[in-house]
Amino acid sequence: MAITPFHPPVRTLMGPGPSDVNPRVLEALSRPTIGHLDPEFVHMMDETKEMLQYAFQTKNQLTMPVSAPGSAGMETCFANLIERGDEVIVCQNGVFGMRMKENVERCGATPIMVEDEWGSPVDPNKLEQALKDNPNASLVAFVHAETSTGVLSDAETLVKLAHQYDCLAIVDAVTSVAGSPLKVDEWEIDAIYSGTQKCLSCVPGLSPVSFSERAIERISNRKNKVQSWFLDLNLVMGYWGTGSQRSYHHTAPVNALYGLHESLVILQEEGLENSWQRHNDNHQALKAGFEAMGLSFFVNEAYRLPQLNAVTIPAGVDEATVRAELLSRYDLEIGAGLGPMAGKIWRIGLMGFASNQKNVLLCLGALDAILADMGADIQSGQAVAAAKRTFSA
Amino acid sequence: MAITPFHPPVRTLMGPGPSDVNPRVLEALSRPTIGHLDPEFVHMMDETKEMLQYAFQTKNQLTMPVSAPGSAGMETCFANLIERGDEVIVCQNGVFGMRMKENVERCGATPIMVEDEWGSPVDPNKLEQALKDNPNASLVAFVHAETSTGVLSDAETLVKLAHQYDCLAIVDAVTSVAGSPLKVDEWEIDAIYSGTQKCLSCVPGLSPVSFSERAIERISNRKNKVQSWFLDLNLVMGYWGTGSQRSYHHTAPVNALYGLHESLVILQEEGLENSWQRHNDNHQALKAGFEAMGLSFFVNEAYRLPQLNAVTIPAGVDEATVRAELLSRYDLEIGAGLGPMAGKIWRIGLMGFASNQKNVLLCLGALDAILADMGADIQSGQAVAAAKRTFSA
Repeated sequence: MAITPFHPPVRTLMGPGPSDVNPRVLEALSRPTIGHLDPEFVHMMDETKEMLQYAFQTKNQLTMPVSAPGSAGMETCFANLIERGDEVIVCQNGVFGMRMKENVERCGATPIMVEDEWGSPVDPNKLEQALKDNPNASLVAFVHAETSTGVLSDAETLVKLAHQYDCLAIVDAVTSVAGSPLKVDEWEIDAIYSGTQKCLSCVPGLSPVSFSERAIERISNRKNKVQSWFLDLNLVMGYWGTGSQRSYHHTAPVNALYGLHESLVILQEEGLENSWQRHNDNHQALKAGFEAMGLSFFVNEAYRLPQLNAVTIPAGVDEATVRAELLSRYDLEIGAGLGPMAGKIWRIGLMGFASNQKNVLLCLGALDAILADMGADIQSGQAVAAAKRTFSA
Repeated sequence: MAITPFHPPVRTLMGPGPSDVNPRVLEALSRPTIGHLDPEFVHMMDETKEMLQYAFQTKNQLTMPVSAPGSAGMETCFANLIERGDEVIVCQNGVFGMRMKENVERCGATPIMVEDEWGSPVDPNKLEQALKDNPNASLVAFVHAETSTGVLSDAETLVKLAHQYDCLAIVDAVTSVAGSPLKVDEWEIDAIYSGTQKCLSCVPGLSPVSFSERAIERISNRKNKVQSWFLDLNLVMGYWGTGSQRSYHHTAPVNALYGLHESLVILQEEGLENSWQRHNDNHQALKAGFEAMGLSFFVNEAYRLPQLNAVTIPAGVDEATVRAELLSRYDLEIGAGLGPMAGKIWRIGLMGFASNQKNVLLCLGALDAILADMGADIQSGQAVAAAKRTFSA
């Protein structure tokens, strides 16, 4: 064996995540490891919790990062709020709604699916009908920002409907946190999970979550134990709790938490509203560039995500070749379509630290060059100028 | 709010883990993030797998790090190998056997407990009796190196017994990997999980696991789906599999994996046998020092772990004060006793990068100074010299 240290290439990450990481976060990861029960570490945990409350716009006491990626944050919400035999309404308009269905089934509950087209938002009328038709349902789950299609759903309206019919609401905010307006308390969301590798400019590996008092009450009064020991919030609360005494549950991923702390300090410095605005501004510039190039968006403007741009692949273009060329010629990563979207769309992220003018110009210039070389039917040479006009407007 | 970047103190970590991290690993964590489906990343995953096979001494194809801490590695083994209604024999001689019991119950199976005193190894005779008494049992689980007491059990004998009675064997090797001899293939272990923050000199957050062909066969032929979507190996295998085509499951913790890769390169450079020997040599020096000081070990020498030293607290000493003084005066962390061991023992780790002569001398010198200041009944001033004699022997 002669395996040597791994030195990754320096990429620009404009796919569906991970997105470009702020260099301050990378540096924070390499700070000296301390014990997960060290008083200094406990102090850092308190600060992290406070800054996550800001990012989620909530006063929820139970706000913390799960020690694993977003999928584990999803499972934390479902495994803690579901008991075997429950009925759960799942709104599905992309890949992640499908994953929610899997979670419900594996918790021994019955999923009731409310389906919308991929590329459309969740339809509140369909949800209301499902709530009427299923009076025993106890939970509604939906994705706020669908990473597989680039669609934003109206979380506030959907949560209100759930509450009208005595259901709690679980919201997937993996791609929305810090990229799109999201107000956990004002919208009365009961359980929410997110990821660090999208608009928070941090590395993948943690899943910030938050739970309302209503959710905690349900979790505290469960008839049976949560089926996952690792994700059982009744146990995790002892470590991330409010008391000065922290009890050992699992060994926290110390250095990953340094990274999250730093990314939240950066978010605070910028301000949440400014972060939302920046994501929108850079999206407008990218959009102007694509339109000048003759490329069209897959999603209607009314519910299009600024941080995740689903662009229709021009006719006759081998999309995998384009992505491979972007990677090899410009070290630029963009995303393919997932599932039924494969071969139909590219997913171009402008998330967190990656949402900046430099990346907008790089992406437009690089795509223009490669598509023109391939003889695709585009308006070459217009995109960068169109984007620049948007910046100065 | 005015939360500023967190700059941790520089500690020496000689508790039960996390232990001192090799600076090369810290530097690796800060390398540029790339996509989790990037060809360069996939190449690094293959190398990581190969080096984990070396660390575990196995040719098992299904060898990889779970994207979460050791507790999640434990749950991966139980959730994938257990079906509801199964009977599982759990050997318990410390905290982590209790956690195994919790896992079994939460998977809907019945735990059959084989209990030994805290501080003693698992007794093969008791296991054999339990196997005879419970012919329907399908699984045996035990801890190779109990971190709560510092005891090594005879994994080879216990696995052989399990197989004689047609059970598969799950082994907890969180503290043993790279610190004590461990041979997955030779001992025919079916499922094993570990942690990165102990003898691998890496940060906490990942859990290397490995599964035999027998285990994979059982997982592939399950009657029901694994209750955890995140930990379902049938899905995870698609991403960490052998084919050139990796399918997306969850977003891998990219930078944490850089750290693990680097720690495994370091292990390879040193050689596994040399790493085992180093852990033993430094333990011998620490032992000579403690004995010269008049402190005694909680665990009989025959099954004492070199990497985790359980030392009996001298009579009349307030152990929490000692630990607080070690931290404030010398930035040195040692561990308290867990559960019934609280107030009775200290747990002093010499794990991975922390297992070195410098740390042995620091620990002995610092403990000697503080205990002497407190008027404890010890032989002060002898320990460091005794340890040094061991180094030169």
